[in-house]
Amino acid sequence: MKEMLFEQVKSIGLAQYSYVVGKADEALVVDPRRDVEVYLDLAARQGYRIRYVLETHRNEDYLTGSLELAARTGAEIWHADAQLNYQYGQGVEDGQTWRIGGLTMEAMHAPGHTEGSMAYVLQDTDGRPWMVFTGDALFAGDVGRTDLLGEQRLAEMTGRLYHTLFDKILPLGDEVMVCPAHGVGSACGTAQMADRPLTTIGIERRSNSMLATSDKTEFVANAARVLERPPYFRTMERLNLSGPPISGAVPIPTPLTVAEFDQARAECRVIDTRMELGFNAAHVPGSLFLWVDGLSHFAGWFLDYNRPLLLVGEEASLHEVSTYLYRIGFDQVRGYLSGGMRAWHTSGRESDGIGMVSVKGLCRLLDEEAGIWLLDVRAEEEIAAGGAIPGAHNIHLTQLPLHLGEIPTDRPIYLFCGSGMRSTIAASILRNHGLRDLIVVRGGTSGWSSTKCPLQ
Amino acid sequence: MKEMLFEQVKSIGLAQYSYVVGKADEALVVDPRRDVEVYLDLAARQGYRIRYVLETHRNEDYLTGSLELAARTGAEIWHADAQLNYQYGQGVEDGQTWRIGGLTMEAMHAPGHTEGSMAYVLQDTDGRPWMVFTGDALFAGDVGRTDLLGEQRLAEMTGRLYHTLFDKILPLGDEVMVCPAHGVGSACGTAQMADRPLTTIGIERRSNSMLATSDKTEFVANAARVLERPPYFRTMERLNLSGPPISGAVPIPTPLTVAEFDQARAECRVIDTRMELGFNAAHVPGSLFLWVDGLSHFAGWFLDYNRPLLLVGEEASLHEVSTYLYRIGFDQVRGYLSGGMRAWHTSGRESDGIGMVSVKGLCRLLDEEAGIWLLDVRAEEEIAAGGAIPGAHNIHLTQLPLHLGEIPTDRPIYLFCGSGMRSTIAASILRNHGLRDLIVVRGGTSGWSSTKCPLQ
Amino acid sequence: MKEMLFEQVKSIGLAQYSYVVGKADEALVVDPRRDVEVYLDLAARQGYRIRYVLETHRNEDYLTGSLELAARTGAEIWHADAQLNYQYGQGVEDGQTWRIGGLTMEAMHAPGHTEGSMAYVLQDTDGRPWMVFTGDALFAGDVGRTDLLGEQRLAEMTGRLYHTLFDKILPLGDEVMVCPAHGVGSACGTAQMADRPLTTIGIERRSNSMLATSDKTEFVANAARVLERPPYFRTMERLNLSGPPISGAVPIPTPLTVAEFDQARAECRVIDTRMELGFNAAHVPGSLFLWVDGLSHFAGWFLDYNRPLLLVGEEASLHEVSTYLYRIGFDQVRGYLSGGMRAWHTSGRESDGIGMVSVKGLCRLLDEEAGIWLLDVRAEEEIAAGGAIPGAHNIHLTQLPLHLGEIPTDRPIYLFCGSGMRSTIAASILRNHGLRDLIVVRGGTSGWSSTKCPLQ
Amino acid sequence: MKEMLFEQVKSIGLAQYSYVVGKADEALVVDPRRDVEVYLDLAARQGYRIRYVLETHRNEDYLTGSLELAARTGAEIWHADAQLNYQYGQGVEDGQTWRIGGLTMEAMHAPGHTEGSMAYVLQDTDGRPWMVFTGDALFAGDVGRTDLLGEQRLAEMTGRLYHTLFDKILPLGDEVMVCPAHGVGSACGTAQMADRPLTTIGIERRSNSMLATSDKTEFVANAARVLERPPYFRTMERLNLSGPPISGAVPIPTPLTVAEFDQARAECRVIDTRMELGFNAAHVPGSLFLWVDGLSHFAGWFLDYNRPLLLVGEEASLHEVSTYLYRIGFDQVRGYLSGGMRAWHTSGRESDGIGMVSVKGLCRLLDEEAGIWLLDVRAEEEIAAGGAIPGAHNIHLTQLPLHLGEIPTDRPIYLFCGSGMRSTIAASILRNHGLRDLIVVRGGTSGWSSTKCPLQ
Repeated sequence: MKEMLFEQVKSIGLAQYSYVVGKADEALVVDPRRDVEVYLDLAARQGYRIRYVLETHRNEDYLTGSLELAARTGAEIWHADAQLNYQYGQGVEDGQTWRIGGLTMEAMHAPGHTEGSMAYVLQDTDGRPWMVFTGDALFAGDVGRTDLLGEQRLAEMTGRLYHTLFDKILPLGDEVMVCPAHGVGSACGTAQMADRPLTTIGIERRSNSMLATSDKTEFVANAARVLERPPYFRTMERLNLSGPPISGAVPIPTPLTVAEFDQARAECRVIDTRMELGFNAAHVPGSLFLWVDGLSHFAGWFLDYNRPLLLVGEEASLHEVSTYLYRIGFDQVRGYLSGGMRAWHTSGRESDGIGMVSVKGLCRLLDEEAGIWLLDVRAEEEIAAGGAIPGAHNIHLTQLPLHLGEIPTDRPIYLFCGSGMRSTIAASILRNHGLRDLIVVRGGTSGWSSTKCPLQ
Repeated sequence: MKEMLFEQVKSIGLAQYSYVVGKADEALVVDPRRDVEVYLDLAARQGYRIRYVLETHRNEDYLTGSLELAARTGAEIWHADAQLNYQYGQGVEDGQTWRIGGLTMEAMHAPGHTEGSMAYVLQDTDGRPWMVFTGDALFAGDVGRTDLLGEQRLAEMTGRLYHTLFDKILPLGDEVMVCPAHGVGSACGTAQMADRPLTTIGIERRSNSMLATSDKTEFVANAARVLERPPYFRTMERLNLSGPPISGAVPIPTPLTVAEFDQARAECRVIDTRMELGFNAAHVPGSLFLWVDGLSHFAGWFLDYNRPLLLVGEEASLHEVSTYLYRIGFDQVRGYLSGGMRAWHTSGRESDGIGMVSVKGLCRLLDEEAGIWLLDVRAEEEIAAGGAIPGAHNIHLTQLPLHLGEIPTDRPIYLFCGSGMRSTIAASILRNHGLRDLIVVRGGTSGWSSTKCPLQ
Repeated sequence: MKEMLFEQVKSIGLAQYSYVVGKADEALVVDPRRDVEVYLDLAARQGYRIRYVLETHRNEDYLTGSLELAARTGAEIWHADAQLNYQYGQGVEDGQTWRIGGLTMEAMHAPGHTEGSMAYVLQDTDGRPWMVFTGDALFAGDVGRTDLLGEQRLAEMTGRLYHTLFDKILPLGDEVMVCPAHGVGSACGTAQMADRPLTTIGIERRSNSMLATSDKTEFVANAARVLERPPYFRTMERLNLSGPPISGAVPIPTPLTVAEFDQARAECRVIDTRMELGFNAAHVPGSLFLWVDGLSHFAGWFLDYNRPLLLVGEEASLHEVSTYLYRIGFDQVRGYLSGGMRAWHTSGRESDGIGMVSVKGLCRLLDEEAGIWLLDVRAEEEIAAGGAIPGAHNIHLTQLPLHLGEIPTDRPIYLFCGSGMRSTIAASILRNHGLRDLIVVRGGTSGWSSTKCPLQ
Repeated sequence: MKEMLFEQVKSIGLAQYSYVVGKADEALVVDPRRDVEVYLDLAARQGYRIRYVLETHRNEDYLTGSLELAARTGAEIWHADAQLNYQYGQGVEDGQTWRIGGLTMEAMHAPGHTEGSMAYVLQDTDGRPWMVFTGDALFAGDVGRTDLLGEQRLAEMTGRLYHTLFDKILPLGDEVMVCPAHGVGSACGTAQMADRPLTTIGIERRSNSMLATSDKTEFVANAARVLERPPYFRTMERLNLSGPPISGAVPIPTPLTVAEFDQARAECRVIDTRMELGFNAAHVPGSLFLWVDGLSHFAGWFLDYNRPLLLVGEEASLHEVSTYLYRIGFDQVRGYLSGGMRAWHTSGRESDGIGMVSVKGLCRLLDEEAGIWLLDVRAEEEIAAGGAIPGAHNIHLTQLPLHLGEIPTDRPIYLFCGSGMRSTIAASILRNHGLRDLIVVRGGTSGWSSTKCPLQ
């Protein structure tokens, strides 16, 4: 007889985890992403039939693959947040169970992150809990955010999360494995999240600082945080209720000649997915910098769903770029620049560029000149944790579009972040806003902190 | 600069050839099959945009992938047989040209197989012909069949084929490469076809016996053949006009438990795709034997599009089986028997079986007993070419359903073909018709001819 | 920053688990198997450098991939059982630590299964245990065997295992994840093993019946079991000390024509890896039946390392067959029968066959005839657990070669196991021993128990 | 029966073609490259046994895979240039034949490129020529170089090539397919080569300008060319006689931390395989620029086999880079910079950079300033064909190391080629030679010719 199937499927960039659990020919998937080939392959290779799709909550950070998976396999879709107006599938009830090959999965109402969030408890053959799929209630090192229903309900929802955690999840037992919906780097968690893809209740009880106190008031004080909310969340939420369009596969972007690409620019947004050095050296005028590995995280902040996209990047990473855009619903990709920047330049077209300086170069400059305008685009927490360069102005990258007026236009702006990636995004935004004299600090504060230049 | 893209894509079983030709980012596909991933992969891997789909004729032996490919790439579809009532795409005209990356492809009216068949001539950079995509006009070792418009038009169509070949294709020059639509084993050619996947006009002129005479009357006498026409051709022809349903991917068959499978049998046809020995040893009662490698060839003869299918087979070959069925439009596959025959037997269910005898065993039997009823299911040509076992009755496998009444029911029937595969199909058909005493000759006439037993 | 790498790599058939753990570019592998591509791929895809190979004990059921992995990556090899005479690598000491990307792995002496067995404890960033790689000390649902040093040391070694478990592993804490060296079906465990690929100390404490008592005497009484020991263990043990030959890749078997294959039979052993029905219907005379999924388990019982192998099987499973043989050191594979049994038969060669009967058929026979000789090749435990067919003689399959004299040669032998697979192995062994009248019961006791025929 | 196997395997970058030909289970490979997985996969997937490796000549531009393939399959190796002192395999004789599955391949002495060069003629089943594997005798659009035995023998060898072509190959017949050893871009051909991966004798007769005259004197006058000879040819020639080391697989490069990488620089050569913009923006000091697609072509000119390599590049292209280096024997790769330039910068290390200017920028500069020192690194033929920028100095990139003294060190040097790639290689060479003020013209002459600036 074949072994049980258990796979944690990670979506890099989104830091989203989904799960496939199978036994004796029957399988279920928890929180599938939109590009569902991975689940189909796992199931087909080992002869499993995907019977159920279980969602822990109506997701706001990616498009669900539930409909896609149901279309390919005939699986039933079961929604948490069943009170919402879903256009497809069925609503889960607390205590509901599903059987796959003799194993039982049981729904457990787990409000806090949303009102109708569900956790799912996989029982061992003895009927006792073996694994709990906690959705956005409990992460490794952190708990879910409770601010999505608005600040006025923050305390209430955090209180409900307290009861979910302390009255329901933790009592399952230290030995129970915890399968969360997100890992390190997710927009659904904070920097507190631990890089611990598989964990247990006992490990979280001892190591997760949010669980350090079992006093409700203290817990609420700690956990009632208002986090950033990328604008694309609204679109994800809406589409996850109506059902994202079924497409069958990640689209293959069209190669465009330089002339075609150039002509399409008028009505499109150009995204450059190369690394920061190549972008700063030369890029198609008007491009937004979003390097591949940062795409999942930042596209939802700066792109507009109504404007078609054009891509510039390494051809080897095009499939990855397409997948990342597809996962969050940017389906209007007009094509990519065939031949890349080399083709752009050999056609005789002009490109734009952004200045760069090394940390030692900046150091010297700060020694020699007064009045250097430094823009630090890191988040407040990072600055608090990692120290700042004296005299720098701070505008978090995600807030930059709202604070463009605060940047002087009459002098050079030196931009930095932790490494040089986010500051290049910022520079591309400022450039598109009309600023010309922009200099990105290569290596950012990480490089800076390795030099002798003082940090506050 | 990247090299030109030229790929001959072979569909095993159907013996169908399609082609991808690309230059400088632009590509076209000639006669795509329905499972189009292969074209998308070739194009994407090398950065080509598929701009055109060219069909040499309205195909009757498989479903075209033109619509599927257009849906995924935005390519234009260009039909030969433009006089027919296509529900999609555009009709080609004689002399029409397409440009890809500076190369020119030109349409050349090539009637004979059908009225509006087209050949396509790829020109070298000097404007002279380099390759000709001949569709079903010219194959390696054979020419296309001309009987599809009916016997009353056979001579006329063969005459038109004569002019296509001798006035248009052969004059292109001996040096020109020939890219036909089919290879050895296709239902669109005869046993004369040569196993020469790539050939030239000169090689065909010297080696293709159908071109041995340039006398029209002689040519027509030779080439005006009436070949078998599997019943599924009608469905292919109809769907290739209206446009086959777009599905995005080869479907993944559902694993069914023994109980589910058994219950579904009432309304389904069970296909067993294992090898002949396992099938004859034991199979689900009522199964039709269609081993994987024979599936493309024989499914269209014996399956009914209105009856859903159930599959029994090795799990390692399920994807292949699904692909083969998908290519010819058998989209109603209910699922497969999870765990295979072992699961059937361990559930305590009874199976059916068919007798087998070795060639030596048959030899002894023929020596010892009179009145053995031998059924040879090979085609007449094969018998003519390869010799017969004395006293055998001949009904070609494909005609068997029409001649069931000719088989005696009161004695054992010994079935043979060339190897034991087609005779097992025949035995499964006879068994489903109610005959019980059936014995397949293992090794068939190939085995027989290696023994001392006499061949006529 | 990239996520931590944690992968459990399962070797189907052997039910062996190895692990890759990586952090910040550095990785280690615990107990690698001989075909190491999987580790190289995981590491390369995510940019990890494999720095260390850690072995939990000198393995006896498969060839270690440590040398192969070191040759490809430059990794250091660290042996448990360091007192043995290894020809390569270095010996681990209790308490030794390794650092990968800031994570610490610590060796913990864990004797019992062998004298120098090691467990490895992966510490969380807070220095507390997160996972323990238990080797053959603790499995899901079972503990390791302690009989490998001989029956005279059984009690002593079981006592040492007691201390390893109760004084060292269990005290790590209920919340700690357990990563064992084997899963369900391993020759290193018993039928008690649970199908729980990932587990925790707490789950084992509550569910593993071997841990139900913490009384040492009781534990030793339960756990001091003498299990079967396949003869190939000796070869694995010897090669794992000297270092298995490095080969770079799983060998690709050579296709042989029927004539070549036939000629090679004189000096080779023919292995038939098809399913039981095809084998019983017809096979090359003298073949041993070892279906693909049973190969890893049974090859080590019945094959001789000094005799080259010839293979018969489905071409789709050849790579799997080669891999399984490679993992346990059967490197002398002469080739496989190209074209399979069909080619054998069309060459006019005779094949051998074995009779089959359905469970209902056997039922009728037992009703009608006295003195039917039934051979049950299941293990005693299975019979105890699942009931027997009245009057059956029992010889466990693995012991059959030692008891051939007990089988009568003057009457039909009806063979059964749980399903029909192992009884077909038995039948092929008896046939090679000269018995002719052999009948395998299709569906075995699983099928039998679904009928009305009585079970004791 | 399965179809014949015919595959042209292209090695991108080297523009090398090898071939697999199989029939009825038996296959041969012509001119295998060193990374032989592709041949093994093709053969294994379709059940072919590779029996023979045939070499058309002792290759000088890549390492043969003959030994590697023989080690994996047991194939026999047959050498052309049999008069040389091979340490392995056997020498081919003119007229020698090999049979694979009933097809015949015949050796035909074809001197000119080397003394003992062989062509191989694949016969059709009628015994007449179907394909000819011409090695370096005949290419699409060109003929092989005849200067490898030295200028003093140039006329003689060209004369012998004349007889090979006009007395042996062309007489095979216009209809015969031509399978050359190289395609467009090979160091073994000239810019005359046509982008025609598959061709015929007739097409070459009509389109290949080297065959335009059948007058021997004229032919020799045209074809007796002295071409560049990269220094690595010597190493390839030597290793292809002794037998390149067998390694089993393309090595997997080791990720190195910034500190490890930095420390290893002292004894290694750093190769940067990114695109030109990123390299010019910032690179590890002392790096040589060799972008991935130019690596196969230029590595043999500028790298030293005795100095280990360190790599900087996109991780997605590492396998490609490793493969390209492996094909030409650069086996000493110490590792690659994990995390790339971002990691370098975040460690606070300084990088080097090279200036860039757009074509319009250069245009303005030339208008405004006198005495701009322009370095054109294209080949003479390119300049002749494409025009030059007025006043530019020309040193072909491959000759640059020999002419370093000709570049002034007291002023800015503006470098250009066709696009900006080769000029970046040149800039990196000059930088390593100590020049600081280097400016690469983005887009090169291709971009230049699209502007209004004058071309001579």
